Amino acid sequence: MTIKIGLVGTGTVGGGCLDILANHKEDFKRIYGLDLELVRVCSLDVEAAKAYGVEDIFTTDFHDVVNDPEVDMVIELIGGTTFARTLVTEALKAGKHVVTANKALMATYGEEVMGLAAEKGLEIAFEASVGGGIPIIDPLKHSLTANGISSVMGIVNGTTNYMLTRMAQEGLAYEDVLAQAQALGYAEADPTADVDGLDAAAKIAILASIAFHSRVTINDVHTEGIRNIKPMDLDAAAEMGYAVKLLAIADRTDQGISVRVHPAMLPLSHQLSNVNGVFNAIYVTGDFVGETMFFGEGAGAGAAASAVMGDVIEVARHIQMGCGPIVGCTCVDKLPIVPVEDLECRYYIRFTVADRPGVMAAMAGVFAQHGVSLYSVSQRGSDDAGEVSLSFVTHTVAEKDVRAALAEIAQLEDVQLDDPSVIRVVK
Amino acid sequence: MTIKIGLVGTGTVGGGCLDILANHKEDFKRIYGLDLELVRVCSLDVEAAKAYGVEDIFTTDFHDVVNDPEVDMVIELIGGTTFARTLVTEALKAGKHVVTANKALMATYGEEVMGLAAEKGLEIAFEASVGGGIPIIDPLKHSLTANGISSVMGIVNGTTNYMLTRMAQEGLAYEDVLAQAQALGYAEADPTADVDGLDAAAKIAILASIAFHSRVTINDVHTEGIRNIKPMDLDAAAEMGYAVKLLAIADRTDQGISVRVHPAMLPLSHQLSNVNGVFNAIYVTGDFVGETMFFGEGAGAGAAASAVMGDVIEVARHIQMGCGPIVGCTCVDKLPIVPVEDLECRYYIRFTVADRPGVMAAMAGVFAQHGVSLYSVSQRGSDDAGEVSLSFVTHTVAEKDVRAALAEIAQLEDVQLDDPSVIRVVK
Repeated sequence: MTIKIGLVGTGTVGGGCLDILANHKEDFKRIYGLDLELVRVCSLDVEAAKAYGVEDIFTTDFHDVVNDPEVDMVIELIGGTTFARTLVTEALKAGKHVVTANKALMATYGEEVMGLAAEKGLEIAFEASVGGGIPIIDPLKHSLTANGISSVMGIVNGTTNYMLTRMAQEGLAYEDVLAQAQALGYAEADPTADVDGLDAAAKIAILASIAFHSRVTINDVHTEGIRNIKPMDLDAAAEMGYAVKLLAIADRTDQGISVRVHPAMLPLSHQLSNVNGVFNAIYVTGDFVGETMFFGEGAGAGAAASAVMGDVIEVARHIQMGCGPIVGCTCVDKLPIVPVEDLECRYYIRFTVADRPGVMAAMAGVFAQHGVSLYSVSQRGSDDAGEVSLSFVTHTVAEKDVRAALAEIAQLEDVQLDDPSVIRVVK
Repeated sequence: MTIKIGLVGTGTVGGGCLDILANHKEDFKRIYGLDLELVRVCSLDVEAAKAYGVEDIFTTDFHDVVNDPEVDMVIELIGGTTFARTLVTEALKAGKHVVTANKALMATYGEEVMGLAAEKGLEIAFEASVGGGIPIIDPLKHSLTANGISSVMGIVNGTTNYMLTRMAQEGLAYEDVLAQAQALGYAEADPTADVDGLDAAAKIAILASIAFHSRVTINDVHTEGIRNIKPMDLDAAAEMGYAVKLLAIADRTDQGISVRVHPAMLPLSHQLSNVNGVFNAIYVTGDFVGETMFFGEGAGAGAAASAVMGDVIEVARHIQMGCGPIVGCTCVDKLPIVPVEDLECRYYIRFTVADRPGVMAAMAGVFAQHGVSLYSVSQRGSDDAGEVSLSFVTHTVAEKDVRAALAEIAQLEDVQLDDPSVIRVVK
C-alpha cells in the first residue's frame, strides 16, 4: 500500500528522516508492505532541498503541504508553538494524520491538538518529542498499561547531561564546559532552554500526562536549571557516594502529581547515575512491573528521525489495516498538581559567603529556627580572598521550611556573595 | 466494551495476572473503556483457584476454556512445548486470540503458531516471553521499525545474573551461590535450563527473529553456560576492567545471523556491566537510533504479569477498534545462521593444570601452532597441591583456531585437570 507523506522542516531531524527513506524505503515495502512515498517537502532552506534532491516536490509555503489532497500524513519538524501549532491544526482539519517531534507544542497545546485529532478520527504521534530515539511514549501507552505508574524520572536533556558529566569527570567550570558544548554544537548560542531546564520541563509534562492519565502542561512543572552548580558540588556529591544529574521527575502522590525539573543527587548504584554524556534515560516505576529503564541517544539526527519514522510506519500500518488510532489521549482524570513547597526530601545547599567569624553560626541558626535539621556541615576555603564555601546537607525536611530559611539567609547582611547551589537528594 | 478472558495456568505469573485484574479492573474500564472479564480459569491446582476465589469458573481441563464460546482471548501460562502447543493451537483454531509468556513454544514453534494465527486473522502476543516485565518485543515491532538492527545483546536470565553478581561481589563459589539461589527460589532444583544457557537461548532466538525479520529457532543458537566459571575468573576480569555476564547475542553480519549465548567480558563502562542481581537488560543497536537499552525485572510474578496483561489490553483494544492484528510475523527474509566457528574475537581461557615444569610452554606452543596469538598469560597457585591455574588472554583470533587449540590441549598427557573456563571478550 502506498502512503503519501508531506514533510515540513528539513533541519537536523528532517534530514535524518530523508536519510532513513533513502536507506530503507525498499525494506519497508518488503517487510511491512508499505510504500512510503514523499510527495511534498517544505522548509525555508532551498539549499537543503537541493542537497536532498527534492527540488521537484519542494515548497516554502506549508499550506502547499497541508492543502495537497494527495498527502495522507504530515510530518511536522519546525518546532515551536506558533507556526507549528497552525500547521498541525490545519493539517488535522484537512484530514491528514500528523507525526511530530515538537515537545513544546505537545507540552503546551497537547489537549487542543489531541482533541482535534480525536474529533477528526486522525492520529497525532509524537514519540520523538521525548528522549530522542528512545522508545518511551510507546511503552507507556502500550506495554506498561497494566500498571499503576508511581514515578517517571529521567535524564531527558543531553546538553546538560554532557555538561554535568564533563564537569564531574574533568573538574571543568560551568562557563568553560558550556563554551565547549556550544563549539561542538551540543548547546545553542542561547542555552537557556537547556541549562534552565525548560526543555526537560516540556518532556516531563508529556510523560506525566501519559503515565498518570491526567493532563500536565509545561506551566505545571517546577523548573530549576544547572547554572549555579560548580565542580566542587560534584566533588562533594562523589565523596558522599552520589552523582549529580539534572532530573525531570513526575511522582504520583496521595495529593496528586508532583512534577519538577532540578539538579539531583542520585546514589552511584542507581542505573541513572551511569547515564553519561549526551545519552538520555527514563526510569519508570509501576506497581506490577517494578523498576524499568529506557536508555539511548536523546538527540541527534539519526536517533530523533528513528522515532519520527517509527511513528510514520505505525500510522501507515493503521491506515493499511483500515483502523483508526489505537490510543489517543488517555487523560481521563483531573489530578491536582502538588505544589513544590509540599516536597519533603534531603537537600545539599552550598553557599559562597564572606569569610569572617560568625557567618556559619548565623546561617546554622536560621536553619534551626525553620526546623531544617542538618545532617552535615562543611567549610572549604577559596582562591578568592575573603570568601569561603559553606555546604549544608539536611535530613529529610520540608521544602517550604528550606525556602523560608534560604530567604532569610539571603537577607543576612554582607553574608551571601552568590546564588546558592541547591541540589535535592533523590532516593 | 467487555472482553472475555480464559486463563490457563495459576502459578507465579498466572497469580500475578489475577492480582492485576483484582487491582486494576476498574482502572481499565475508566481509562481504556475495556471491561476485562475473567470467565474461565484452568489449572491443576484447585487450591490456587480457592485462594483467588475463582472456584465458580474453575476447571482442570483446558478444553473447557478453549471450547467456551464466550471466551474472546486465552492466556496460556503453563509453559513447555507439549500441552501448551496443543492448547495454543486449539485456541487459535477455535477463533480465540492468544496471549502467552511461553518462550520455549515461541522459540521452537513460533512459525507454526504465528502462521496459524495469521491464517485465522487472530493475534498471538508474547511480550512476557522475553525479559519479564521489560518492554522489548513491542519496541522492536513498533518504535524501532525504521532501523536496520545490527545487534541485540542482553542479560536475559535473572538466575545466572544473580549468581554471577554474587560470585563477583562476594567471591562465592559457583556451587555455594547456586545452593543459595535455589534456597531463595531464584533457581530451580534442576538448574540446567538457567545455568547451561537454554533459557537465554530461547529468548535470543525470539528477539533475533523479530530484529532481523528472519526466523531463528532455539536450535540455531550456539549455547554455553556458566558451570565452569570460578570466582578467580571474575577477579581476573575485574583486574582487566571487565564484568563477566552471561550474554545472549544476536548479530547481523555480512554472512547472516550470528546468534549465541555464552559468558562474556564486557567493559565496566558498558551499560550492561551495571545490570546486577536478578535484573535483566537488552541492548539494541540500530543504524539510525544508535544504541538503546531496555532494563527491568526479568522475572517474578508482578513483572511477567505486567507484560502479559499489557498484551491482553493491547489485543482487547484491537478487538474494540474492530481491527485485526497490527503486526504478526515479519520474518520475510531467510538469512543463514553463521556457524560459531566463524566468530572472531578476543578470548579469556583459564585452565586448571598439573603443577609441573613445561606445562605452560607446551600449552603456549599449541596456541602458537594454531595461530592463536596471545595478549597475556598469567599463572596463579592453588590451595590444592599439584595444581595451578593458567590464564590466557588472546588477541582477536578465529574461534575455529581456538577450538582446534583447545582440542589439542585436552589431548596433552596429564596436563588438564578440569574443563577450561572460556569467556569471550565483547566490545
